[in-house]
Amino acid sequence: MQTLTVDLGDRSYPIHIGGGLLERVDLIVPHLPQPRAAIVTNTTVGPLYLERLTKTLAGAGVQVIPIVLPDGEAYKNWETLNLIFDALLTHRAERKTTLIALGGGVIGDLTGFAAASYQRGVPFIQVPTTLLAQVDSSVGGKTGINHPLGKNMIGAFYQPRLVLADTDTLNTLPERELSAGLAEVIKYGLIRDLPFLEWLEANMDKLVARETEALAYAIYHSCRNKAEVVAADEREAGQRALLNLGHTFGHAIEAGMGYGNWLHGEAVAAGTMLAADLSRRMGLISAADVARIEALLRRAKLPTVAPNLGAEVYLNYMGVDKKVEAGKLRFVLFRRVGEAFVTGDVAPELLRQTLTEAARG
Amino acid sequence: MQTLTVDLGDRSYPIHIGGGLLERVDLIVPHLPQPRAAIVTNTTVGPLYLERLTKTLAGAGVQVIPIVLPDGEAYKNWETLNLIFDALLTHRAERKTTLIALGGGVIGDLTGFAAASYQRGVPFIQVPTTLLAQVDSSVGGKTGINHPLGKNMIGAFYQPRLVLADTDTLNTLPERELSAGLAEVIKYGLIRDLPFLEWLEANMDKLVARETEALAYAIYHSCRNKAEVVAADEREAGQRALLNLGHTFGHAIEAGMGYGNWLHGEAVAAGTMLAADLSRRMGLISAADVARIEALLRRAKLPTVAPNLGAEVYLNYMGVDKKVEAGKLRFVLFRRVGEAFVTGDVAPELLRQTLTEAARG
Repeated sequence: MQTLTVDLGDRSYPIHIGGGLLERVDLIVPHLPQPRAAIVTNTTVGPLYLERLTKTLAGAGVQVIPIVLPDGEAYKNWETLNLIFDALLTHRAERKTTLIALGGGVIGDLTGFAAASYQRGVPFIQVPTTLLAQVDSSVGGKTGINHPLGKNMIGAFYQPRLVLADTDTLNTLPERELSAGLAEVIKYGLIRDLPFLEWLEANMDKLVARETEALAYAIYHSCRNKAEVVAADEREAGQRALLNLGHTFGHAIEAGMGYGNWLHGEAVAAGTMLAADLSRRMGLISAADVARIEALLRRAKLPTVAPNLGAEVYLNYMGVDKKVEAGKLRFVLFRRVGEAFVTGDVAPELLRQTLTEAARG
Repeated sequence: MQTLTVDLGDRSYPIHIGGGLLERVDLIVPHLPQPRAAIVTNTTVGPLYLERLTKTLAGAGVQVIPIVLPDGEAYKNWETLNLIFDALLTHRAERKTTLIALGGGVIGDLTGFAAASYQRGVPFIQVPTTLLAQVDSSVGGKTGINHPLGKNMIGAFYQPRLVLADTDTLNTLPERELSAGLAEVIKYGLIRDLPFLEWLEANMDKLVARETEALAYAIYHSCRNKAEVVAADEREAGQRALLNLGHTFGHAIEAGMGYGNWLHGEAVAAGTMLAADLSRRMGLISAADVARIEALLRRAKLPTVAPNLGAEVYLNYMGVDKKVEAGKLRFVLFRRVGEAFVTGDVAPELLRQTLTEAARG
């Protein structure tokens, strides 16, 4: 097992990464202020791991309230959030009752926002079971739900007390979701960690083959990068925005294709290619750089061509994105491979070229 | 105009109290990070003050998004909150767009929670127009909505950047709501400020007659007490719980009678009498003390006898209250008139006596 710390003063917390962690009662129980916890999971992950985690906690005398939600991005909404509140109130969960998210990004985001809002805040633990959640969404405290007019528009910055990334849970992950997680892994290399990017180029085949040691290495260095960025800029006033590489385009793809049809990681991969294309048109990186990025995403079995929604549709969806400031779009672009930056200074005609010529899928 | 500061480090903020403040653009505009704001109000307050505040802001070049909600505690729910989100997204409100609550406690709580949650947090200003909101709910950062199974169960601690208490708005306040606000004013005297309580006993008739100077004095000293408590204990780990005098009983009254039938302040007044009765049964205060408290509440035209819901109904509603800890009820009781304390140590038979003998209305 490896351990990292997200350094946020008195709200700092550990991330444990390794096999067999769902059985490690010694890692979990010290974080519970009362011997009572609600485990929030879904109909896919629940049958696989809910009993195992419940047993671990019950063995230490912890009373567990199980809350099983429907599975899918389509359920990341107020109605599902309210199912959590209903269960907590029915079981008279208190201010010291801990909420444990057992599942992927949707479960983590929903449970985290429920923990932030229930009685104005209760303790929260992340037990991510997808690669995407282990390397990205479980770390950093972004929680929330979607609104029909925009993704993640309603939520809170709310930090967990502990992240437990059990690599064993990746064995049951569908291939498409493994790839979606790799999109965020690659992102860390692309935006700020060239040595890690080079390691990924050397080891992508092992990751796709789910070699345990390679996965643990990739998760550790992804979390390390994310923890460094979050510690420096918790509320996304500055460099945290770099983590949104491919996301402004990606959110437009997810929304334009209908939430749930493209996985978040898939949309980020295709969005990253649009960011690369725009960076090339602006003379920041070369065509060879673009090809290098594309090759790595392709080896991770990710889509590299964004869908042809039409420039107007893209711009419309991008206009309600949270990265908008004073009516001006903000883009994460490449200064070079391994270094990204944020800019609002993009020529509209180049953007339009990217949206019509590069988004041709 | 008088000014107080709520001292919360880099989240400190001023409370201005006085007449004509809705016209004081100089007090508001420095707090807006972009010249854009959404004013959230309701169908009762909107026709009275929305145009005045909009004019003030427009005069400084601030673009205003007006959001007018239905009026009443019954609307302090997710559906109404979502009307705010719908309007913000439709108008493409951004992370730097300020939300201004123009109204009473319900508008302040809804708008504050919307500000805490929209895009994970946007700037927020309170312009309370009821006495209750000016002396209590607009100060301290408690925001939220009701759930069918409990009042204020969903919300956030989220501080405003500014509170603007314009005493002119009290001229249009219905008499019943003025009295409801006085319940919270009296509370500050009862729990921690005997000199203020004595001032209230000497000046209650002036307050009921809405004498401007007396009202401003009462608002100032109420906000001072609240600001001191909140600065010492923002998240209600300790002494902030004193502010809940009469509230555990009061919430049961509000819920048991159906939200909206008793005003919050009315329920708090009757609940304060139950707390006084229980304190007397426990030998903490005398029958003369109880009579003194009752006399002041009565002069403020508040109900002093709680409804006869039956002990079981009271206990059931009190069981889901946020003041519950490890399954044990916490009570705010009187050590003496002018000093309250929090205790979990209440004999069940005395509580039952209070709920059957004192709640007889």
